[in-house]
Amino acid sequence: MDSIDVTYRFPAGTDAAREARVIAVGQTAGTWGPEWESRAGRLKSHLAQVQDVLPQADGTSLAVVRFPLANCPEGIGSLLTMVYGKYSLSGPARIVAIRLPRGWGVPSGFGIEGIRRVTGVVDRPLFMGIFKPSLGLTPADHARILEEAGMNGLDVIKDDEILPDLPDCPALERLRACRPALERIRKLRESRGQGEMLYAINLSGRADTLPDLARRLVAEGANALLLNVLAYGYPILEALASDPSIRVPLFVHPAFAGAISGARDWGLDYSVTLGTLASEAGADAVLIPTHYGSLPFSEEEERRVREILRGKGVFPVPSAGVHPGILPRVMADYGTDAIVNAGTGIMDHPGGVGQGVRAFFEAFDRYRKNQSFSPETLPEGPLKAAIGRWGS
Amino acid sequence: MDSIDVTYRFPAGTDAAREARVIAVGQTAGTWGPEWESRAGRLKSHLAQVQDVLPQADGTSLAVVRFPLANCPEGIGSLLTMVYGKYSLSGPARIVAIRLPRGWGVPSGFGIEGIRRVTGVVDRPLFMGIFKPSLGLTPADHARILEEAGMNGLDVIKDDEILPDLPDCPALERLRACRPALERIRKLRESRGQGEMLYAINLSGRADTLPDLARRLVAEGANALLLNVLAYGYPILEALASDPSIRVPLFVHPAFAGAISGARDWGLDYSVTLGTLASEAGADAVLIPTHYGSLPFSEEEERRVREILRGKGVFPVPSAGVHPGILPRVMADYGTDAIVNAGTGIMDHPGGVGQGVRAFFEAFDRYRKNQSFSPETLPEGPLKAAIGRWGS
Repeated sequence: MDSIDVTYRFPAGTDAAREARVIAVGQTAGTWGPEWESRAGRLKSHLAQVQDVLPQADGTSLAVVRFPLANCPEGIGSLLTMVYGKYSLSGPARIVAIRLPRGWGVPSGFGIEGIRRVTGVVDRPLFMGIFKPSLGLTPADHARILEEAGMNGLDVIKDDEILPDLPDCPALERLRACRPALERIRKLRESRGQGEMLYAINLSGRADTLPDLARRLVAEGANALLLNVLAYGYPILEALASDPSIRVPLFVHPAFAGAISGARDWGLDYSVTLGTLASEAGADAVLIPTHYGSLPFSEEEERRVREILRGKGVFPVPSAGVHPGILPRVMADYGTDAIVNAGTGIMDHPGGVGQGVRAFFEAFDRYRKNQSFSPETLPEGPLKAAIGRWGS
Repeated sequence: MDSIDVTYRFPAGTDAAREARVIAVGQTAGTWGPEWESRAGRLKSHLAQVQDVLPQADGTSLAVVRFPLANCPEGIGSLLTMVYGKYSLSGPARIVAIRLPRGWGVPSGFGIEGIRRVTGVVDRPLFMGIFKPSLGLTPADHARILEEAGMNGLDVIKDDEILPDLPDCPALERLRACRPALERIRKLRESRGQGEMLYAINLSGRADTLPDLARRLVAEGANALLLNVLAYGYPILEALASDPSIRVPLFVHPAFAGAISGARDWGLDYSVTLGTLASEAGADAVLIPTHYGSLPFSEEEERRVREILRGKGVFPVPSAGVHPGILPRVMADYGTDAIVNAGTGIMDHPGGVGQGVRAFFEAFDRYRKNQSFSPETLPEGPLKAAIGRWGS
């Protein structure tokens, strides 16, 4: 495959065939006059072709435009410029799929397999938490939360995406404060035949300082990193995933994705921004809002992102409004290859953080044994308390 | 000013006061329980405040949320995460203004004053062209076009934004091919009391390779660079503008801006993406679609972007569908502090590139002398030919 196939959806009332031609020409070589006749072969080789124009039942139309791979052999910055650059200014069109040649992007360094290897969790979903409150804690607060969560079995914890490298709680100080706890947790996990607990530290900065921070963190023992890829740009994720001195799992947060994917007739579908592009940029795990969670994400959008990530070996991380009572739904949708992620659904457990983690394991155990989640059937304990607070 | 004030517009039917509170809390410290009472002062200092909720005549509402500067002392990646990160996934809201403290961003290295100094053009708008066809030319083709344009007086030329660092026409080879011509043009301009002609070379790559390419280009004599900042991310522009080894004007192209700014109820206004954020990230000149050009940009949007850029000393570059016949309108809107940019409006002139450039100077001369642009009043020459093709 020596092309990049892009599917555009045009709203009802648009001359989709015409617009697709505008894209195929205007987003590639453009037009030329007779003075360029001697270059015609070369110029033509850079033109895109309209492959298909498919009117849909709802009045919209899909059109597939095939771009020569030679116009964009690498780089998502260049890809976005080609497929939607100037055209994005001209009028409603939405990219619903991008098909890239195998091997086009930056490969994930870990993905599902690598994260399972590092954490030593092979036969169940991983469980992940988020430090709360989101910002305003001290590094010592982070360490205390992390230790309680990890000693109770949590596999991964991450900073809230809203927390940058702030002077009153710098990323490096958070790591330094948490490392002794991570080490104690490692020993406990080792005794159970497991690997490390991961702490995905949130990255921030410019395109020069952010990777520097990542390298400093990894040099000091960080074992995972978190990037708000939509706010920072895919080229930064591509750089992190290509950097031989940053060999830790890269978690991707969907913050700001709605700016590009939220509208109906503009931008790029979530399946493209969080699925195709995040995985092609080298993500190892990507957070996805669940459709029954706290954000208005549709079941279909969630399913498509999940399948695209899995197809590239990347861990889907169902998130946002997840609590122990909905674990059966998460398992039904995701199966075992998921990192189940809860913020307040762990941190605000009535019995504290440790009980919050235990409630998820208790829920998973009941789910595996096909036991009921009705409150009256539950024994006293963390799960019952969680369901008392958040329902099931 | 120790805060960042963000104005959101909510669609009709939204409880704007409620949503603004959700943003003020959810995009900052979040909520916390009694166990964090000892941290309450610290946590509260990170909460945002709703300053105003203003219902509008059209049913929409504006709300101003004041974020503590301490939550985001620097970096547009972090800023976007704070002001619109997770909330972007939850429902229609559009950011129509961001007010940052003076000195918050990365200062422009050149801006209007610096670009006038380098090009030696002080008393008129600058004129700028774009290589066409967009891609498929050889480096030697670039050199030939550049020489013809520059010898006829063009001040700035840029690659088409769609042209990345392709193997069949690498950025460094384009520069090397063009440098002898740039040197000859420099001598001609010098004899007229002017400075250099600028060639803004389009950058591409990952966050690590793109700045490397920029440094190599500058080390080999490049005197300007072009970045598709929306496709690559503001943090890359911040890095380029902060790099002491990249001391050349940075031109910013709006490609992909429609992905974030095109929809009505989502994303960020063009005045924010192309105005506030581009200038805070260190742009020296920003291309703006003109409202009478080939893209559906409104007069009001164009005006706001222009004013925000000028307020930061950044050159506005009216673009897209510009040709000599509409120069009077451009001048009426922009006055002298503009870089008037034409692609096909120069390159497709019936008399060739040189005549295409001369047509703009002839148009400017007539404009300055308050002479008519009616075809019947025009002498034979480049302007008449241009107006014959594109009208006035």
